[in-house]
Amino acid sequence: MIPRHIFESEHDVFRDTVRKFLMEEAYEQHVQWEKDGQIDRNFWYKAGEQGMLCPGAPEEYGGVGADFRYNMVVSEEVSRLGLTGIGFSLHNDVTTPYLTNVANEAQKQKYLQRCISGDCIVAIAMTEPGTGSDLQGIKTSAVDMGDHYLLNGSKTFITCGQQADIVLVVCRTDPDPKAGAKAFSILIVERDMPGFERGRNLDKLGQKAQDTSELFFNDVKVPKENLLGEEGMGFIYLMRELPQERLSIAVSAVAGCESVMAQTVNYVKERKAFGKSIADFQNTQFTLAQLEAEVTAMRIFIDRCAELLLTSELTTVDASKAKLLATELQGRVTDQCLQLHGGYGYMWEYPVTRAYADARIQRIYGGTSEVMKLIIGRDLLS
Amino acid sequence: MIPRHIFESEHDVFRDTVRKFLMEEAYEQHVQWEKDGQIDRNFWYKAGEQGMLCPGAPEEYGGVGADFRYNMVVSEEVSRLGLTGIGFSLHNDVTTPYLTNVANEAQKQKYLQRCISGDCIVAIAMTEPGTGSDLQGIKTSAVDMGDHYLLNGSKTFITCGQQADIVLVVCRTDPDPKAGAKAFSILIVERDMPGFERGRNLDKLGQKAQDTSELFFNDVKVPKENLLGEEGMGFIYLMRELPQERLSIAVSAVAGCESVMAQTVNYVKERKAFGKSIADFQNTQFTLAQLEAEVTAMRIFIDRCAELLLTSELTTVDASKAKLLATELQGRVTDQCLQLHGGYGYMWEYPVTRAYADARIQRIYGGTSEVMKLIIGRDLLS
Amino acid sequence: MIPRHIFESEHDVFRDTVRKFLMEEAYEQHVQWEKDGQIDRNFWYKAGEQGMLCPGAPEEYGGVGADFRYNMVVSEEVSRLGLTGIGFSLHNDVTTPYLTNVANEAQKQKYLQRCISGDCIVAIAMTEPGTGSDLQGIKTSAVDMGDHYLLNGSKTFITCGQQADIVLVVCRTDPDPKAGAKAFSILIVERDMPGFERGRNLDKLGQKAQDTSELFFNDVKVPKENLLGEEGMGFIYLMRELPQERLSIAVSAVAGCESVMAQTVNYVKERKAFGKSIADFQNTQFTLAQLEAEVTAMRIFIDRCAELLLTSELTTVDASKAKLLATELQGRVTDQCLQLHGGYGYMWEYPVTRAYADARIQRIYGGTSEVMKLIIGRDLLS
Amino acid sequence: MIPRHIFESEHDVFRDTVRKFLMEEAYEQHVQWEKDGQIDRNFWYKAGEQGMLCPGAPEEYGGVGADFRYNMVVSEEVSRLGLTGIGFSLHNDVTTPYLTNVANEAQKQKYLQRCISGDCIVAIAMTEPGTGSDLQGIKTSAVDMGDHYLLNGSKTFITCGQQADIVLVVCRTDPDPKAGAKAFSILIVERDMPGFERGRNLDKLGQKAQDTSELFFNDVKVPKENLLGEEGMGFIYLMRELPQERLSIAVSAVAGCESVMAQTVNYVKERKAFGKSIADFQNTQFTLAQLEAEVTAMRIFIDRCAELLLTSELTTVDASKAKLLATELQGRVTDQCLQLHGGYGYMWEYPVTRAYADARIQRIYGGTSEVMKLIIGRDLLS
Repeated sequence: MIPRHIFESEHDVFRDTVRKFLMEEAYEQHVQWEKDGQIDRNFWYKAGEQGMLCPGAPEEYGGVGADFRYNMVVSEEVSRLGLTGIGFSLHNDVTTPYLTNVANEAQKQKYLQRCISGDCIVAIAMTEPGTGSDLQGIKTSAVDMGDHYLLNGSKTFITCGQQADIVLVVCRTDPDPKAGAKAFSILIVERDMPGFERGRNLDKLGQKAQDTSELFFNDVKVPKENLLGEEGMGFIYLMRELPQERLSIAVSAVAGCESVMAQTVNYVKERKAFGKSIADFQNTQFTLAQLEAEVTAMRIFIDRCAELLLTSELTTVDASKAKLLATELQGRVTDQCLQLHGGYGYMWEYPVTRAYADARIQRIYGGTSEVMKLIIGRDLLS
Repeated sequence: MIPRHIFESEHDVFRDTVRKFLMEEAYEQHVQWEKDGQIDRNFWYKAGEQGMLCPGAPEEYGGVGADFRYNMVVSEEVSRLGLTGIGFSLHNDVTTPYLTNVANEAQKQKYLQRCISGDCIVAIAMTEPGTGSDLQGIKTSAVDMGDHYLLNGSKTFITCGQQADIVLVVCRTDPDPKAGAKAFSILIVERDMPGFERGRNLDKLGQKAQDTSELFFNDVKVPKENLLGEEGMGFIYLMRELPQERLSIAVSAVAGCESVMAQTVNYVKERKAFGKSIADFQNTQFTLAQLEAEVTAMRIFIDRCAELLLTSELTTVDASKAKLLATELQGRVTDQCLQLHGGYGYMWEYPVTRAYADARIQRIYGGTSEVMKLIIGRDLLS
Repeated sequence: MIPRHIFESEHDVFRDTVRKFLMEEAYEQHVQWEKDGQIDRNFWYKAGEQGMLCPGAPEEYGGVGADFRYNMVVSEEVSRLGLTGIGFSLHNDVTTPYLTNVANEAQKQKYLQRCISGDCIVAIAMTEPGTGSDLQGIKTSAVDMGDHYLLNGSKTFITCGQQADIVLVVCRTDPDPKAGAKAFSILIVERDMPGFERGRNLDKLGQKAQDTSELFFNDVKVPKENLLGEEGMGFIYLMRELPQERLSIAVSAVAGCESVMAQTVNYVKERKAFGKSIADFQNTQFTLAQLEAEVTAMRIFIDRCAELLLTSELTTVDASKAKLLATELQGRVTDQCLQLHGGYGYMWEYPVTRAYADARIQRIYGGTSEVMKLIIGRDLLS
Repeated sequence: MIPRHIFESEHDVFRDTVRKFLMEEAYEQHVQWEKDGQIDRNFWYKAGEQGMLCPGAPEEYGGVGADFRYNMVVSEEVSRLGLTGIGFSLHNDVTTPYLTNVANEAQKQKYLQRCISGDCIVAIAMTEPGTGSDLQGIKTSAVDMGDHYLLNGSKTFITCGQQADIVLVVCRTDPDPKAGAKAFSILIVERDMPGFERGRNLDKLGQKAQDTSELFFNDVKVPKENLLGEEGMGFIYLMRELPQERLSIAVSAVAGCESVMAQTVNYVKERKAFGKSIADFQNTQFTLAQLEAEVTAMRIFIDRCAELLLTSELTTVDASKAKLLATELQGRVTDQCLQLHGGYGYMWEYPVTRAYADARIQRIYGGTSEVMKLIIGRDLLS
């Protein structure tokens, strides 16, 4: 095991706290949460008390201004236990950074403390029923009505869609088709704004404790003060956050890989077939050796990317490489480790089974593997 | 499309009937059956009336003595519609052939007509909690008590485990460890025999309308007349049925591949991204072209194997090749077609999503891909 | 081994003759031919005497009008022995069929008998230095000068480029860019026509006994009677021959796979490592089992395609599937079998080494794998 | 491009020198060296003058005691230019370290200065005709005759086998089969010792300017002072050098990948097909994007391993992961980049073609990929 060298002792202390907390408050509870289609709303508050939410939020808004490695600790421990219902990575790494990095003073005052305490869950709404990874196709529109925008449209596949207290809605504020990337803005839509409705909690292949929904906006009056940053700058803000967003997914992916590998190593050593343990078969050894080598290398690559993120040097292209490779590896690891479990690998109660189902979306959300290749290829060949 | 040439016009007529029946009586109902964890018991009776159960059963027991191609028609049409809850392939291709081929006259008289009508669903119980594809490890024991066997043990992953009216239980009748393959026999256990209990319906990754269970045998008194064939011949009987059993899985796999390909071709032609249809992207074209070529070739290979089965020329080795290749291809097809669906591919309501989850067990049951390779490799290198 | 059923007893007799002839007259000689960069010119005459050249040529021109299965026998036996310098597949399956199918009576009289005897080796020149699989980019031009065409341009990668007695040159006869596919014709250029020159014999990765060259045409006066078929129909003729051309490559590929598998099975059984034979390692068993299953299936697929070719039912799309799958499989088989040979697999004297090097071009010539996917994808998604 | 951070400015200066030297003295000359089957003997002396040989040799023996990063610079630049005939990696990273780390004072005095100047090329002889990666099977024996050993046996696949001035011969000094790993010692055999003979220069798939030979030892009297280290410790010494040896191969592999990628990016941008550049095809973009991501990650992994080697923390297991992954990636990169070159990728004059042929042995020598998996798997599952 090659030692990781990006963490310092305080991160290790935090990791112990997080791990203990998750074991006590989430691990067994997650079975029920899967049945509920969402996690317990109170769990957010408990996690807030532990400092697990928005570790990077500035001190002036009640945070501790910690670096991204604290986010990583949270994501890794959640992923390691297979608690895919817990949307902290999204909240910490993807959505609340918009508040920290783009929101004005009043917005920060209004929301950030609540995001840290668990009182305000933040979702982001990009994808639309007719628009996947292609954001230029967004049709949700916000018409300037003087003191407010009139928001109309619908979004889908929104993580935390049922629980979110505020939703960052990417919408078109300039109807001119020639406006290009300048046509889009981000509005903060609050839970109880009239005309904002949530569709049903979507039934998915996996991540069953994670609420995912369609959202509908019918003539929602969004006050001007809920515009995030400047009008027409929505895309720029989205682009800026991409490296962290994609690295976040990669971080969860690698931790997931390591966890599934460890489970499988244990399983094959204990499980017998044909008079010996499954670990005694060379096919098992070679399959796991190949995966182990890949996971080792991926861990080092992703940690290097994290190092670059800490100094704002991680490019979108390199983050796309991280996301592509780590999630594709997670796909292979979960598939082959499931296979080594034989029939048990198909039983929902086995962690490897859920890990397989949970992992399948990782190659799709946050930009599909295909979109990652588009980005990398364009950079390489232009 | 290369024309299939193994069917004759009467098979085509039968196919139309089957397809129509499934569309009317099963396709929409299957959503509810998934929630129920099993299909409607009455559906078996209806299917029996249509001649879909045990088409190969001899005329003297109420059957029509049809050839295996009728079984294929049933399997293919069920698979094509993704109705994985319907266990007819198992019933027709795997379990009832033991009655036809091994049972004595009295047993045939007692069960076969009921199997044809849907009144008697037949399961087979090989796998045990500690034993996967390795049947030599079976511990369930039957002790000769004169007029009956005393059966003790437990079995798991038994398809139709909840609904089965009779279960063919593979058990050890000779406790001597040196007895080798001669130690095993098959007993017919009936639904209401005291001491026979079913565990809960297992929660699986997919095939959610298919009931799968543990079965428990605690001092079950199985009358001697319920011995299938001769004592100590259990393994021989199992071996004899292997080619048909494995081909049966391969047949379903190829039909499943063709169906998912057709759905995906439709989807990518309709769905837009970045201002064009997904079908316009070369990545989509190349991905589907590769899969289409493989499915075309696999269809021809499997039909050739079926041809050989019809004349009893299909060896276990070649059937293992069929099972290995067809189910591995199904894994690739469902994975890549899901990916081309983007976020929708993760929503349970999409057929491709269920096809992906359903297909994952195909590489495991009926002998894992690894066991197939053991068999092929041994034959090749000995 | 699933029996092949497309051959009849006369083909088997012919196969014995061919095999014996190749063993005696080519197998050991091939080592020297590799050094020479071409095979012995006299070998063509000897093969002609054995009936191995143009078996399908009509009786009225001295042929025997045999079906394509005779061609297959020749290609398979040549490929089986790894005699890639012998260009009979090209001569029999690709080039001389233009004479049989398109040439006029005078041309047939002039050339066919010589093609059958080995006196006239026929090459076809499509690719140009700036044009790969994309024939629309051909620049070689033939200007109508009344009684002759004035041919100018250059061609490259021409198989039999050194030995060919006549070359079928695909050229542009209509300079109008709007002419599209109608712009191209095929001219028969003879060995001694002034202005026709051959470049050096190209040094390649493999197929070292196969002469491959650039050809140059500088003001070559090609008499009008050397126009093949009609002016402007060149593309149509090329398209018509594609199914047979691609199947021919696939036929050689499968025979090559079978041969390399057989060699490797022998090698791993004999060769020891770590105190046992390499065949005793499960990795060896599983690797070869997977390949064996794929080769078995591919053999059946390609034979089915051949069956369709015999009745003119093989489409270009299906032939493209055959070429794509068979040559990609050959790539995998040769790579993995080389690996199982360890260091010996890198020594040129080992047949598996040459098979690996020889096979690499199969995925490229006759239309690259990428072009095959273009064709299949277009058909599937249009 | 993620910046490499393991080098300091003096390494960069050295790299410039090396690169310039290779371009002037080797790049064009290499074509001839391929024909000769070995590089120019004088080139070793020139390289010695440039400080490219044994940068790590201690100052007391005429070296400069540089760290392994200087070795890396040499290996990377040689690999980047595809100069696989130049055996400096072996000399610097693998063979002369035995002298530095194990030899006694007299041996160091005798050989090291000559190794640095290019006057003494060092080969190591482990593999035997019947023994691949399995060293326990070594049969070459050295019998203690008092003041000398009598050495008998043969070795094969010895890199620098023609040019080597001394050969480190791994041999059995204890004939007792129960001696296990303690049975082996290393002797220094010199060029002109009677009974030491070289077989012919072996003809290989690639690396054609690298001399590789069988070596024969017939009653060679090797003086006792030519024993390297202690008798019976041969295996221990070999094991100790494994991490550096394997990392050395991985370092060359990654540099080779980067070079082939750069060549291919240039090629696909310039080369046209179907009216656009090959780089405009999405298949090209996606293929190269995937490889580029993998190469980026591998570069970081290998640099991290180098960092660990510098502080003696690189384990054999992690070095095996590096060797496995980097050489397998090199196999994929060269194969797919060759494919993107179309027909030109099969022409020997193209660098990508030679890179493909040269790379094939990387997965085999220094321990095959299979042996790497054995080592990793054993560590993981024990």
